[in-house]
Amino acid sequence: MNKKLLNYSDYLKLEDILNSQKLKSAERGTPAHDEMLFIVIHQVYELWFKQIIHELDSVLVTFNKQSVLEPDVSLAVSRLNRIIEIQKILIDQVRILETMTAMDFLEFRDDLFPSSGFQSTQFRLLENKLGLLRDARINYGGKDYKASILEKEKQDVERSESESSLFQLLENWLERTPFLSFEGFDFWDQYSEAVRSMLRNEENVIRNNPNYSESEVEYHLKEHERAVSSFEAMIDPIEHEKLIDSGKKRLSHKATQAALLIFLYREEPILHSPFNFLSRLMDVDELFTTWRQRHALMVRRMIGGKIGTGGSSGHAYLKSTADRHKVFAELADLSTFFIPRSALPALPDHIKQNLGYHFKS
Amino acid sequence: MNKKLLNYSDYLKLEDILNSQKLKSAERGTPAHDEMLFIVIHQVYELWFKQIIHELDSVLVTFNKQSVLEPDVSLAVSRLNRIIEIQKILIDQVRILETMTAMDFLEFRDDLFPSSGFQSTQFRLLENKLGLLRDARINYGGKDYKASILEKEKQDVERSESESSLFQLLENWLERTPFLSFEGFDFWDQYSEAVRSMLRNEENVIRNNPNYSESEVEYHLKEHERAVSSFEAMIDPIEHEKLIDSGKKRLSHKATQAALLIFLYREEPILHSPFNFLSRLMDVDELFTTWRQRHALMVRRMIGGKIGTGGSSGHAYLKSTADRHKVFAELADLSTFFIPRSALPALPDHIKQNLGYHFKS
Amino acid sequence: MNKKLLNYSDYLKLEDILNSQKLKSAERGTPAHDEMLFIVIHQVYELWFKQIIHELDSVLVTFNKQSVLEPDVSLAVSRLNRIIEIQKILIDQVRILETMTAMDFLEFRDDLFPSSGFQSTQFRLLENKLGLLRDARINYGGKDYKASILEKEKQDVERSESESSLFQLLENWLERTPFLSFEGFDFWDQYSEAVRSMLRNEENVIRNNPNYSESEVEYHLKEHERAVSSFEAMIDPIEHEKLIDSGKKRLSHKATQAALLIFLYREEPILHSPFNFLSRLMDVDELFTTWRQRHALMVRRMIGGKIGTGGSSGHAYLKSTADRHKVFAELADLSTFFIPRSALPALPDHIKQNLGYHFKS
Amino acid sequence: MNKKLLNYSDYLKLEDILNSQKLKSAERGTPAHDEMLFIVIHQVYELWFKQIIHELDSVLVTFNKQSVLEPDVSLAVSRLNRIIEIQKILIDQVRILETMTAMDFLEFRDDLFPSSGFQSTQFRLLENKLGLLRDARINYGGKDYKASILEKEKQDVERSESESSLFQLLENWLERTPFLSFEGFDFWDQYSEAVRSMLRNEENVIRNNPNYSESEVEYHLKEHERAVSSFEAMIDPIEHEKLIDSGKKRLSHKATQAALLIFLYREEPILHSPFNFLSRLMDVDELFTTWRQRHALMVRRMIGGKIGTGGSSGHAYLKSTADRHKVFAELADLSTFFIPRSALPALPDHIKQNLGYHFKS
Repeated sequence: MNKKLLNYSDYLKLEDILNSQKLKSAERGTPAHDEMLFIVIHQVYELWFKQIIHELDSVLVTFNKQSVLEPDVSLAVSRLNRIIEIQKILIDQVRILETMTAMDFLEFRDDLFPSSGFQSTQFRLLENKLGLLRDARINYGGKDYKASILEKEKQDVERSESESSLFQLLENWLERTPFLSFEGFDFWDQYSEAVRSMLRNEENVIRNNPNYSESEVEYHLKEHERAVSSFEAMIDPIEHEKLIDSGKKRLSHKATQAALLIFLYREEPILHSPFNFLSRLMDVDELFTTWRQRHALMVRRMIGGKIGTGGSSGHAYLKSTADRHKVFAELADLSTFFIPRSALPALPDHIKQNLGYHFKS
Repeated sequence: MNKKLLNYSDYLKLEDILNSQKLKSAERGTPAHDEMLFIVIHQVYELWFKQIIHELDSVLVTFNKQSVLEPDVSLAVSRLNRIIEIQKILIDQVRILETMTAMDFLEFRDDLFPSSGFQSTQFRLLENKLGLLRDARINYGGKDYKASILEKEKQDVERSESESSLFQLLENWLERTPFLSFEGFDFWDQYSEAVRSMLRNEENVIRNNPNYSESEVEYHLKEHERAVSSFEAMIDPIEHEKLIDSGKKRLSHKATQAALLIFLYREEPILHSPFNFLSRLMDVDELFTTWRQRHALMVRRMIGGKIGTGGSSGHAYLKSTADRHKVFAELADLSTFFIPRSALPALPDHIKQNLGYHFKS
Repeated sequence: MNKKLLNYSDYLKLEDILNSQKLKSAERGTPAHDEMLFIVIHQVYELWFKQIIHELDSVLVTFNKQSVLEPDVSLAVSRLNRIIEIQKILIDQVRILETMTAMDFLEFRDDLFPSSGFQSTQFRLLENKLGLLRDARINYGGKDYKASILEKEKQDVERSESESSLFQLLENWLERTPFLSFEGFDFWDQYSEAVRSMLRNEENVIRNNPNYSESEVEYHLKEHERAVSSFEAMIDPIEHEKLIDSGKKRLSHKATQAALLIFLYREEPILHSPFNFLSRLMDVDELFTTWRQRHALMVRRMIGGKIGTGGSSGHAYLKSTADRHKVFAELADLSTFFIPRSALPALPDHIKQNLGYHFKS
Repeated sequence: MNKKLLNYSDYLKLEDILNSQKLKSAERGTPAHDEMLFIVIHQVYELWFKQIIHELDSVLVTFNKQSVLEPDVSLAVSRLNRIIEIQKILIDQVRILETMTAMDFLEFRDDLFPSSGFQSTQFRLLENKLGLLRDARINYGGKDYKASILEKEKQDVERSESESSLFQLLENWLERTPFLSFEGFDFWDQYSEAVRSMLRNEENVIRNNPNYSESEVEYHLKEHERAVSSFEAMIDPIEHEKLIDSGKKRLSHKATQAALLIFLYREEPILHSPFNFLSRLMDVDELFTTWRQRHALMVRRMIGGKIGTGGSSGHAYLKSTADRHKVFAELADLSTFFIPRSALPALPDHIKQNLGYHFKS
């Protein structure tokens, strides 16, 4: 009877949420109308980062298990789908911030010094949990990226550096997927031959293109050679290892093979969820890239070549991270090695049965 | 020297913001993964509502002044543009919530009882500030809409009922716009005749449509009669007054005329900002309608015909408000009375000059 | 050697595509700038309708087979996913058309008479292929919807009326899904009891809600009774049949059961694709509803209460179809009968095994 | 009486439009389901390009006149707004194409050889009309970009190279805008001093940042120096001229000043439309950049490092054009030189009056 009934406002802690917008320009006595938007949109970004981390953590737990079952992969796909829908909003809502013009921003920009988006702990956590390597980070201003994180939050970020990332767990899972053991079927040999034939065909296309001048043929052959050697490196475990040592690749040879198989034979029922999982990872990667690019464009327009509030030239930094901070680019690049279904080695029946549903009736 | 340097986390009060997600299902000992999303998205909605109110308040202050200057109207347009960009996100982010399925929601739905979105104080404020009338509200469950608002917040909502709404301020402003006084030019007479001729033409189109059967002609003529009488009511101040008395119209006759003039002669430089202002108001109205419709669809799929957590059948309520809670529908309906530029009475030169920029050189 | 090399322009037949914009206003000698947009956007809509029909036809062929295998369902999900992405664009691009104002439209509106969007053959095909029944169509102006279709295209539309629609093929497929035969497990009894207990609980919630006045309790109990009788009707094949006879339901009792099972036990691997298929069908339905609603709002603003170019009051028609022309609403409404996983009857092991992947190792 | 009544299908030339999808894979006897999408989406892109060119041409005509009046600028803003809404759709509909996977594309990719998106005449026209210089184009494969255009369309593209582009017309208009002649007010001097003071302040911020190590201070000072010298170059017509000669800048000194003034004093009524015009140009530029980036990401995923159907490594080309093919980047960069309103030299009253509306009453 006495129990207080739950209400919307208390449940959502709106008293805290809606009283957390303290304008620095107001402290100076000259409140800038647009500072409210600046605060609110960043709070919204951080709330969504929290949600993305919540989903990501759930995927990490799942893939950290000894054995990952089909429903686990399928659940992970749902989690990633949610992250993807959030990312689309992260990108689209840049348009809201763009209703603030460069001149409006100047009204309160100096009040923010020296705070900066660099200090977002959650975004660093998110990058680390995905698998961004410390050494792959764009080093800006000669300082470790953690230098701008608050002392009390540094520990969290350090832990996220040492824990298994989604990249690592993906690699482990790919390496041990059972459907890789195609006994009695020399998939790798047959596949290699099929690709080599395709590449020879492409070379002919270049050499015999009636539209090309001699210099163009030369030009395109050079491009093609890169494709060939990148393929040979993928086929050959030793070459692949060298590329990993030199930092040009990251995903192990065995995991790369497994990923390729999933892409090539995704029609097999048991490969549906793995295929969806790999596809969603590429989506997440692409959407963060797009977000960084959009963000960089917006910052350029807002402050031009000015020094960012945190002391960096924000726009250049953001732009440089867009491509470099990708984690799963090697999955996207596998399409280089796809071959048409018609050229694909057919799976022997006993393997096909193992990859299908078995329904007793 | 000792002054603590501002950092991102403190500036945005992230400690409060990011620790305000307390899962009710976790209190029971069985945390539901998706309750986090449910909380976060509603907090994001409330943050955006706060921002919309911030912009709306600024427009209200501007239009509450004795004289509204051109830069005021132009600034109001910017504020509305921002609201519009926010509304687009409010609609699009329903897709994020839709990644939660009906079965997932059931995992924690009972924990929310009896709290409900009905209790959003900010949304009520927003509706009142726009100008939604108490009597125009869909009455649900035979209870005043304020009954579900927390006691301490009721005062704010009551005040918003009694203060001048955007609808009222718009009406006042339209009624006193100087460019309505077309001395020496009988605009209203000439315009009336032009419309009547257009309507006669449309009647002919129906009567002589070779595709129509007799019953169709009859059917469409009935439709057309409604247009005619609605036009006559607009022309005639007394008829217009009657419609207002019977609750079928709300905007005064004089304001309606002014709005119509702005639409018809929007090419005149001095009418640019007024035209943009009216257009943006219609956008805001439409986007809230779309938001309610999207919301209703989502709720239907989530709970079907179940009783909402707050005790209402949420989907039906939301759907019924979509059209009924429009505030500026009469602006959109004015297009009924538009006539082609070619048929439009030409403005005499002395008036045209008054409506243009005057640049001394 | 002589073979003409394929080029982009010929491949896409751009000479035809880009010379198909003939402004009627130009024939009169006064080209209206915005008529180009009007033509182009409608051509884009029709191209996308063609693509949707292409995808839909492929799904229809698949489900018309004697036995639908898992990869078939999974492929159908991909096809629907594409339709969904197209639908989102159909909705969003209304914003492009809205850059044309009502006054701009008037410049060429009379030139279009009496052509009208009613005459879109492809949209009728699309509705019929989805499964919209002739009798469920809003009858506008007392005339069959096919009356406005061109003679030479009428045959296609008639055929689409008589061929198996997606609704019918879905129903057939649901009725024969093997995983419905839970031998030795009285699912339906156990499930019924679980729902009844849930509904009793909801009744208590209403009766004992301390916030409710007597009249409110009465009000909500009436709402609840509807839920109870709709549930009883679903449980009881005879009641269900009556609802079908009276036109209140359409999906057969057996198919309804199967759909419900898929929703409730979607975690089982073999039910993934069926669950995704049902979910995407609801998405398609919702998105067409949203499209109709957006369209209606836009038309209202464009022509107000005017008679449409085809002789109908377009806005009212479009609005009325938004909900009525839904085909898969009964799937969305099934959530009324969902119960929490914790309350769900557990599947016996021998059934669970049948629903999983069987991987020989 | 005998006159054939206009119908939807004839008006839109649907017979041509909907019969222009000829699958190359079908000619081989093995129709690839996804080739339909590939054709349709490219046709949709070309239809939108046509519409963009239609709007752009109208803006070009307007700005080619001897005197550009306020309503002209305002109309140009409307035209650009429409282009912007179209661009958003161009970007978003990439998602539709992404429902085609790399493996699906391989089914018909070879059939397309050697046609390629490079051959889109309309996109070249569009770039030239905006003002992309021949020399600024990424040269790919050592060949002029027109080499891939069909012979019969080459003339159009050549003409677009020689006609006044939007960039040039903008420059001319900016150079002659009357509101630049601030007689009796030494704006440029006062503004220069205000910026120099702001830059000195920023230097202090770097030197005295307690967070910076010595090397960081050095690093950021170097960044800052670039800002200073870029500012001095802007102030000094001779330095500016040098940058133009060296290809680092393009917009004339006088036009740059005018643009800056418009940004800084955009609150003045007469500057509203000019400000909106510059802002929309930046939007158009940004959105094409975003479109190229999205396109590049999509192509990378689709073909990886493969050679494009037209013989180029498409993804790398697209990515490199994203930033380089911007036309109005100098407008966005002007924000580098913005200063807060409070620091802005106040306009003398006699100038302010000239910039406002003059309303005789």
